[in-house]
Amino acid sequence: MADAREPEALVSAADSGDPRALARLISLVENGSPQLRSVMKLIAPRTGRAWVIGLTGAPGVGKSTVTAALVRAYRSRGVRVGVVAVDPTSPFTGGALLGDRVRMQDHATDSGVFIRSMASRGHLGGLSWAAPQALRILDAAGFDVVMIETVGVGQAEVEIASLADTTLVIVAPGMGDSVQAAKAGILEIADVFVVNKSDRPSAQEAIRDLRAMLAMARYDDGAWKPPIVPASAMHGEGIDELAGRLDAHAEWLAGSGERDRRRLARAREEISAMAVAAMRERIGALPGEARLEELATLVAAGKLDPYTAADQLISS
Amino acid sequence: MADAREPEALVSAADSGDPRALARLISLVENGSPQLRSVMKLIAPRTGRAWVIGLTGAPGVGKSTVTAALVRAYRSRGVRVGVVAVDPTSPFTGGALLGDRVRMQDHATDSGVFIRSMASRGHLGGLSWAAPQALRILDAAGFDVVMIETVGVGQAEVEIASLADTTLVIVAPGMGDSVQAAKAGILEIADVFVVNKSDRPSAQEAIRDLRAMLAMARYDDGAWKPPIVPASAMHGEGIDELAGRLDAHAEWLAGSGERDRRRLARAREEISAMAVAAMRERIGALPGEARLEELATLVAAGKLDPYTAADQLISS
Repeated sequence: MADAREPEALVSAADSGDPRALARLISLVENGSPQLRSVMKLIAPRTGRAWVIGLTGAPGVGKSTVTAALVRAYRSRGVRVGVVAVDPTSPFTGGALLGDRVRMQDHATDSGVFIRSMASRGHLGGLSWAAPQALRILDAAGFDVVMIETVGVGQAEVEIASLADTTLVIVAPGMGDSVQAAKAGILEIADVFVVNKSDRPSAQEAIRDLRAMLAMARYDDGAWKPPIVPASAMHGEGIDELAGRLDAHAEWLAGSGERDRRRLARAREEISAMAVAAMRERIGALPGEARLEELATLVAAGKLDPYTAADQLISS
Repeated sequence: MADAREPEALVSAADSGDPRALARLISLVENGSPQLRSVMKLIAPRTGRAWVIGLTGAPGVGKSTVTAALVRAYRSRGVRVGVVAVDPTSPFTGGALLGDRVRMQDHATDSGVFIRSMASRGHLGGLSWAAPQALRILDAAGFDVVMIETVGVGQAEVEIASLADTTLVIVAPGMGDSVQAAKAGILEIADVFVVNKSDRPSAQEAIRDLRAMLAMARYDDGAWKPPIVPASAMHGEGIDELAGRLDAHAEWLAGSGERDRRRLARAREEISAMAVAAMRERIGALPGEARLEELATLVAAGKLDPYTAADQLISS
C-alpha cells in the first residue's frame, strides 16, 4: 500500500487536501524515512501558522472523547483540524491504533478534518524526534488547529508540553489523588485543566483538589492562571466552555509574546533532538554492532564500567 | 547537607551498609555529578549479583503499596532489598517525593532495606541514563533484590522493562479497559501481572480482560507465560502468591539463559545511552547556546528546516 510518489508530489497533493498524501507523509515520519529531509525542506516556508494544542492525561480519563468533542466544536465553526495521536509505547506495539479509524468515520467525507495515530518506534529519539515533524506536516497542509494527543503521564507528557502552544491536561474523578497528580508534574505543564466525566459524584472532589494545588502556586503579574473546566465530553457538556477557555489562552499567548517564546523554545528542542538523532546514527555507523556487543559483554561481566565503555564506543 | 566524602570513601561506606553514603551516591546520579565516573569504575567488579525487579503501572493502581508489601515479604525471608522509585516527570517537579520517607519509616532501624526516590532531571538522557546507575549502586552495595518502580505508562514503562530482570505490571480494576492496556504495550513487557485492589467488585472483570489479551498472544515452547496474580496489597493478600510467581520467573530466567541475554541487552542500552549523553554534552560544548538560538530563530520563522539546522549545529 506504499505510496510511491516523490516528496514534491506528496507535498503538493497534501497541500491541496489529499488525505492519502497526508497519511503517507506521516508514515514517512513513523518509518524514519530519509525522504523526510526533502519534505521538511519543501514545507518549511509554509509552517508556523497552526495553533498547536497538546492533550494529555492518564489512560482512562477520556482523552479520545475530549479530542473528538473538540474536533466537532471546531468543525462547527468551520475551523480545519488535524489530530495526531502519538503512542510513545510503540517500540513494542508498532503501527496505528484502531481508535482513530473509529473516530475518523465521523468525518469521513470532511476534508477539514484529518485524524491519525502515529507510532514513534523509539528509533532516532522517539517522540521528541517524530512528533514535531508530524506537526510540521499538518501545519504546512493548512490546518488551523493541530491537536497532538499522547498516551500516559511522564516523559511523554512533558515532551508534548514542549511542543504545544497550549497544553490541555485531562483528569477524571477517581483517577488517583492529588499527590499523584503533583508527582506527574501536570501543574507545571497545564495551561487548561479539564475535569472530564464531571457527571460522576466524585467530580467535585477532583476539582477541589486541583484548585487547592493551584492555590499553592505563585503567579507573576500578567501570568496565565490555568482554569479548571468541568466537562462530560461523552455527553457534549462543558465543551463550549472548554473551547472558550482555549481561545482565551491563544489570545493571551499572542498578546503576551509568550507564543513566540514558546515557538522559539520548540524550534530549539527540535533542532537539538535532530542533532542528537544525527549523532546517534553516527554511533550506529561508526564502530558497528560488533564493537557494542563486545563492550556490553565486558560491562555485563563487571569487567568494565559503562562510562569507559561509552568513551571507547565513541572514539573507536 | 552535602556529603563531602570522596568517591572511594563513599563507596566503601556504602559497601559496609551506611545508608547516608548510599543516599549520597544516588544524589550524585540525580545531579549528574562528574564524580560518578570514578564511582562506576570502583563498583563495576561488584555488580551483576542483584535480582532486578521492575514495577510499573498507571497512577492510582497502588504501586507503592505493592512495593511496600513485597519489601516486607522479602525482609521476612532475610533478603536485603533496595528500592529506587524513579519519577520520570521530574524535569519540572525536581527532588525526592514524600512517599519514600513514609515508607522508609517502617524500616528505619533495618539496614537490610534501602528506599529512595530519584528524580531524573531530563538532563543527559534522563531515565535511561540515571536509572541504570542507581541500580549499579544498590547492586554493588550487596542488596539481593533491587526493585525499581516508575510512575506512569509509556516510554518510562518500556525503559524500566529494558532494565529489569523481571518486570511486574500492576493494574487495578476500573483503571481503563483492555484497549488502553494494549495501547500501553504492557503485554509485551510484563513478566508477571498483579491485579491489585482485588477486593473490588470489578476485579474479576480486569482479570478476565487480561486473560483474554494473553490468550491472543503466541508463545514458543519453553517461553515464559506471564501469570496474573490477584492481590490486595493494602491488606497483605496475595503477596505470598506474588512473591512465589516472581521466584518462579527468576528460576526460569536462570534456567533458560534468558537472564544473561537480558543483562547483555541492558549493558548494550546502558552504553548507548551514555554514548548519546556524551555526544549531547559535546553539542552543548561545541557551538554554544548562541548558535542554537540563531538556528532556532530561523526554524521558527520557516526560513530553515530542522534537518539543515541540526546539520549546521553539529558541524559548526
